[in-house]
This record gives sequence, structure tokens and C-alpha cells, in this order.
Amino acid sequence: MDEKIVFQKLQAISSEEAMRLAIQVAEEGAPFVSPNPLVGCVIVNRQHQFLASGFHARYGEAHAEVNALKKLTADELVGSTFYVTLEPCAHQGKTPSCAKTLAQLNIARVVYGLVDPNPLVQGAGAKILQNAGIEAFEYQGSLKSDLEDLCEVFLTNFTHKKTFIAAKVAASLDGKIGLKSGDSRWITSEESRQYVHQIRSWYDAILVGRKTIEIDNPSLNIRHPRIHKTNKLVIVDPSAQVVQQIQNGKKFQFMHCHQPENIFFALSPQVKNEPSIENFLQSQNLQSIFFTSTADLKENFWKKNIKSIFIEGGAETYAHFFKNQLVDRLHLFLAPQVIGGLNGLGWSDSFGIQALSDRLVLKKTKISMKGSDYYLTGRFY
Amino acid sequence: MDEKIVFQKLQAISSEEAMRLAIQVAEEGAPFVSPNPLVGCVIVNRQHQFLASGFHARYGEAHAEVNALKKLTADELVGSTFYVTLEPCAHQGKTPSCAKTLAQLNIARVVYGLVDPNPLVQGAGAKILQNAGIEAFEYQGSLKSDLEDLCEVFLTNFTHKKTFIAAKVAASLDGKIGLKSGDSRWITSEESRQYVHQIRSWYDAILVGRKTIEIDNPSLNIRHPRIHKTNKLVIVDPSAQVVQQIQNGKKFQFMHCHQPENIFFALSPQVKNEPSIENFLQSQNLQSIFFTSTADLKENFWKKNIKSIFIEGGAETYAHFFKNQLVDRLHLFLAPQVIGGLNGLGWSDSFGIQALSDRLVLKKTKISMKGSDYYLTGRFY
Repeated sequence: MDEKIVFQKLQAISSEEAMRLAIQVAEEGAPFVSPNPLVGCVIVNRQHQFLASGFHARYGEAHAEVNALKKLTADELVGSTFYVTLEPCAHQGKTPSCAKTLAQLNIARVVYGLVDPNPLVQGAGAKILQNAGIEAFEYQGSLKSDLEDLCEVFLTNFTHKKTFIAAKVAASLDGKIGLKSGDSRWITSEESRQYVHQIRSWYDAILVGRKTIEIDNPSLNIRHPRIHKTNKLVIVDPSAQVVQQIQNGKKFQFMHCHQPENIFFALSPQVKNEPSIENFLQSQNLQSIFFTSTADLKENFWKKNIKSIFIEGGAETYAHFFKNQLVDRLHLFLAPQVIGGLNGLGWSDSFGIQALSDRLVLKKTKISMKGSDYYLTGRFY
Repeated sequence: MDEKIVFQKLQAISSEEAMRLAIQVAEEGAPFVSPNPLVGCVIVNRQHQFLASGFHARYGEAHAEVNALKKLTADELVGSTFYVTLEPCAHQGKTPSCAKTLAQLNIARVVYGLVDPNPLVQGAGAKILQNAGIEAFEYQGSLKSDLEDLCEVFLTNFTHKKTFIAAKVAASLDGKIGLKSGDSRWITSEESRQYVHQIRSWYDAILVGRKTIEIDNPSLNIRHPRIHKTNKLVIVDPSAQVVQQIQNGKKFQFMHCHQPENIFFALSPQVKNEPSIENFLQSQNLQSIFFTSTADLKENFWKKNIKSIFIEGGAETYAHFFKNQLVDRLHLFLAPQVIGGLNGLGWSDSFGIQALSDRLVLKKTKISMKGSDYYLTGRFY
């Protein structure tokens, strides 16, 4: 169970605590940094007392190191150590190079959590610092996997040139998301549902299948007291059934909450034979992605510059992604309830494995409570 | 996540910590106190420093208070406070009345977690202490529900005159215990399986269905480095199919690990029409329980003096108990894996509810890690 940690200025702080705090503050940037990585920075003085923290808050704006150091005077910075979750950038991008900025300061040391996978940085940031007489090295502690989690979207994007795929499931202890009869009221707690809005903000786009739109008619926007963000929405609608209902005048809930240019219909190539549908989408400024398989769909997200996707169901949509091992992270909300399989609808009902040795194994799992529910998350890779 | 707490003699201890430690030591008695309650006791001095702890370790032997106080001198006990998980007993049973023993000591206070439901005690223990000038009152803190958990078997036995029923499920995150094809190797971790042996020791009898015996051929004994206990075993075998296989010479694994007088076959009354079966059971010193429904079976456990039952599957056996709401506690081991419903066998596959409002809700849940698995437990009542 992760608890938030808080440090007062000049409070003693260990290296592990400093890196943990840097990770924690970095997470605050999650809604707005894409396609940049999440980065956090904590500065401590010679006596290893906490001085300041900062994080990269928004793409195009200041980096974590700068947001932290601008809280301090030049005197305070003398002899200080920077804990940064990612190697300081070596190159000038939208903002000046952080490594070069730090190199001009009278600081003692920079400890960075991960080497930047960006070939434009990779070791070059550390080099700039070392050339300026500043000790700079990669962190080797117990939080390595948390640092990788923090950067997972960026690492997947940069290293594999692929869209990161996360799936959310809200189910009972026996894996049911509702009844086969269609009874599917919320089974998870108010706190879980609130947290889902926060998780939505971490990803570029939300994805659901056609039936979820038809049966639940959800809004699929981000409703959160502090996070104000408009997100993209992908509706997997191979035969354009949802599109045709809209053509016929149906007003779905999601249309009130998203700009048309943020709504993507994932369609089968056969739809191209019906020009009326493409013409309609264009006239409404709605987007289309044509795909031949789920793997092909994932490739197309990348081409459309969608760096991360958050799948919210239903069972058939989960199946397409899980059976092709296309899911990178699972966000599982477990309500402490038992529904039973005789009439219950399982979230994994539509996919299967041939032998137990083929089962999907979740790694580096973490758990916490959201109201009476358990929120469990981990990665499949 | 519950962590074990440890106190050195004369270390400062709060009232909450004292009661928590009393609960923790009480749990050590779990394998051998039945039909007595689990009880723990912690003694602190006037300065609220830890002095000693004790627990009821075995039916017929000394109670928790006596096991704690005998570690101290009369001088040390002067002015001390006893934290006991249950009201000290007022009556002479197998051992002298604890309330009367304490009343003779020069102690200041007794704080008891729960009022004893035994009508022979219920407030009488506190009265004896108060009459001796010792302050005695019921604990009113945050650990009330943990105290009830600790005593749940005893409370169910005493208050409701019913056998306590717990079920163990070891499943994937999507509720699967294996594949429909029969592939059912262990999916949970070594640590989970080791812990199951400990849980087995908490209950009078283990129960499984016929198919589990036929397919898995399990031993169903307690294999634990520190707990050496022989347990009772109930096999739900309505048509006596397992019995007939034994008659025909089949040697099941469980027969090597249990004395015949500890093996109970739950049989349908129709079996009585085949005297050869009853004769065989009697000749082998094997036990029988005849039952007409699962609720009736539960009643019969009580008549056979089985105070608690631990159900270990399979899916059909779970169904009989869950659909009749006969399960008091669930012990759920969740392996961080996804198996899929297309070929997976769900532990709840054989029972269902008509409307989501009928779902079974688990209360006062707790979670901890066993290797890479999550162990979740809670009560249904």
C-alpha cells in the first residue's frame, strides 16, 4: 500500500526517500506531459536535508529540474544533490537543455533514476555534468521498477515505437462485470469510479467497443475536480453500426462530451465500399481509423500519433487485445463481492488459452484500497 | 497489510498496541483450542510499559491470563493492567476461573476486548473483578472488528449453535482455478500453498467434493513445519462413488494421511438402501453423515460435534455452499494471472444470482501478500 510522503524544508531525507518523493511528484504531471516522459526532481543539501521538489507539468513547459531549482537561491544550491527520475536532457528542445543548465550551477551531484532512452540524450546528459565537475551517476536502489513504471509510456514509445496499451477492468472477486441478462449497474465503489477519471487523464485516448456504447451509453470524458483535460476517444465499430445510428439521428452521450475531431471510429476496410459513411464522418469532422486486425489497429494508433490508449471494455474488446497479448498494463478494480458464473458476465469470457502454461502473468503488481474495493495494477511485459 | 508487532520487556506500549499484540498472540493458539475461543493477554505496568504476554494454547490447558501472569513476579504485577481479548471466565471448567484468579492479585485494571457470549460468563467475570476492587471494562477501540474475527468460530458456535464454514479459493485474477480440459496444476505461489496448511489447522475439518478426490487425488492433511495436527476430513459423496471405489480396492492419497475414524463420507439417504456400503464403512471404521440438502449437511456437522469446516472445492461443492449462503468466511488466494473464460474453469461457474442486488458482499476484508499472490479474506455475515 503506497502512502504519500511529505517533507518539510530542511527535514532530513534519505537517498531512497528523495527518489521516492521525486517519483511521487513526477506523477502529478501525468495528464499533460505526453509525449514527454513524466519526470520529478528533489534537491537536498550537503547535510541531506530536503530543499525543494519540482516536476514536469506540461508538454512544452519547464522541466522538473528547473521547476525545482527555481524555488531556491543560488546560495542554497551550493553543494546540493539533485535526485531526478530520468537523466537530465542534453539537447535543446522546446526548452533549454537541463544538463547544460545544471552544469552552470555550483552543485555537487546529480543522481538520475534511469538513463534516457532517447538517443539524443543517452549518457550525454551525464557527460555534460561530469565535464563541469559535477558528480553524475545512475541510481541503483530498490525503486528501479517504480522508476520504470513511471516512465513506461515514454519507454514503450521511444524504445519500441509503439503505442502503450492499458486496460481497466472493474469486476467482482470472481471476475464478473455484470449479469448476462444485461444487469450491469456499477459494482465498484464511488472512490474507485472517481479514481478511474484520474487514470483516464494519464492516457492520450480512451477506447471502448461498439456494444459498450450501445448498451451503457457512457460519456467517457474526464470528470475530476482538479484535472481539466479533454481526451481522445476510440470506438471500435468495425461495421460502422454506431456511425450509422448517428447518421440516423441518434445522439449518444459521448458526443456531448467530446469534440468531433477527438472521436475516432475504428472501422473495417469494407466500410470504404460505402462512401456515404466516409462522407458523413468527414462532414461531421469525425475521425476514422481503418484496421484489418487488432495488431494492425495498434499500429494505426501509432501512425495517428496516439501514444497511449486506455481500454475500458467490454468483454469482446478486452478479448481482442488480451488474446493478441497487446495489453501492457492492467488496472483492476476488485469489488469484494461474489456474483457467480451461472448468470454472471465475466470480463475474460471471450478469450482463452489452450494450456495453463500460456496464461498471462502480471508482474510488479501493486495494490491499494479505493473505498471498500482493492485496486490492483501491474504490467504484462 | 498486517505486520507482526514485537515488544521488549519495559518497552512503552499504547492501549491499542497492547490489544493488537493480545490478538496477535491469541492467533498462535488457533490449531488446538477448539471448541474453546482463541484468547490472548498482554500485561502492562503502571507506566504503560510491556511486561508479558500469553495465550490459550490448547483445549484443557491454562488460559491466556494465567500463561501471561506466570511469567511475572507478584511485585511486577502490582498495579498492572491486563489487556485480554475476551472477558475473563467466571466459572470453573477444565481450569480454575480466570476472573477469580485475577481477583486475588494486586492488579489495577482488566480491559477485555469482547464480552463473553457464554451465558455462564457474560458480565460475571467483570463483576468478580470489580467486587475485588479491580477496574474492569470492555475495550472500545478501533480493533473491535479484529477481535470479532479472532473469536468468530467460537461466537458462531456459542451464539448461533452452528458450525462455522470457511471456504478457500485459489484462483487467477479473472476467477479461474484451472482449464475446463482438466489442466489444473497449481496456479498460486509456493508461499500461498504453505499458508493454506496453516489455515487448515484453524478448523476442525477439511471438506471437498467427490470430483476433487477423483481428479486431483489430494492428501488433505496438514503439512507444516511447526503445526503437528491431525484433522478431520469430510468428502461430499452423495452416491457413495468414492466409497465404492475404495471397496473395489482403490487406494486414494487421503487414506494414507488420515485415521479412518477421522474420515467422514457425506452421503445421500438413498445409500441406506444399500446395506453393503454401510457395512463396509463400519468394517473399516470410516464415518458417515447422511444429508438431504446442503443446509441439512451443515446441521449434521453440528450434531457430529464438528465446530468448523474448511471447504477446499471444487466448483460444484463451492456452488452448493455459496448459493445457499452457508459460507461465513472466504479465504481467497489471487494469483496475478489472467487465464480467460473461453477455456478456463471458474470457481463460481456452478452458481449464480438472478439480480445484481443479490450478490454476496464480503465485509471487513483484509489483504496481504503470499509470494507473488494476494491473500484476501473477509466475512459474508
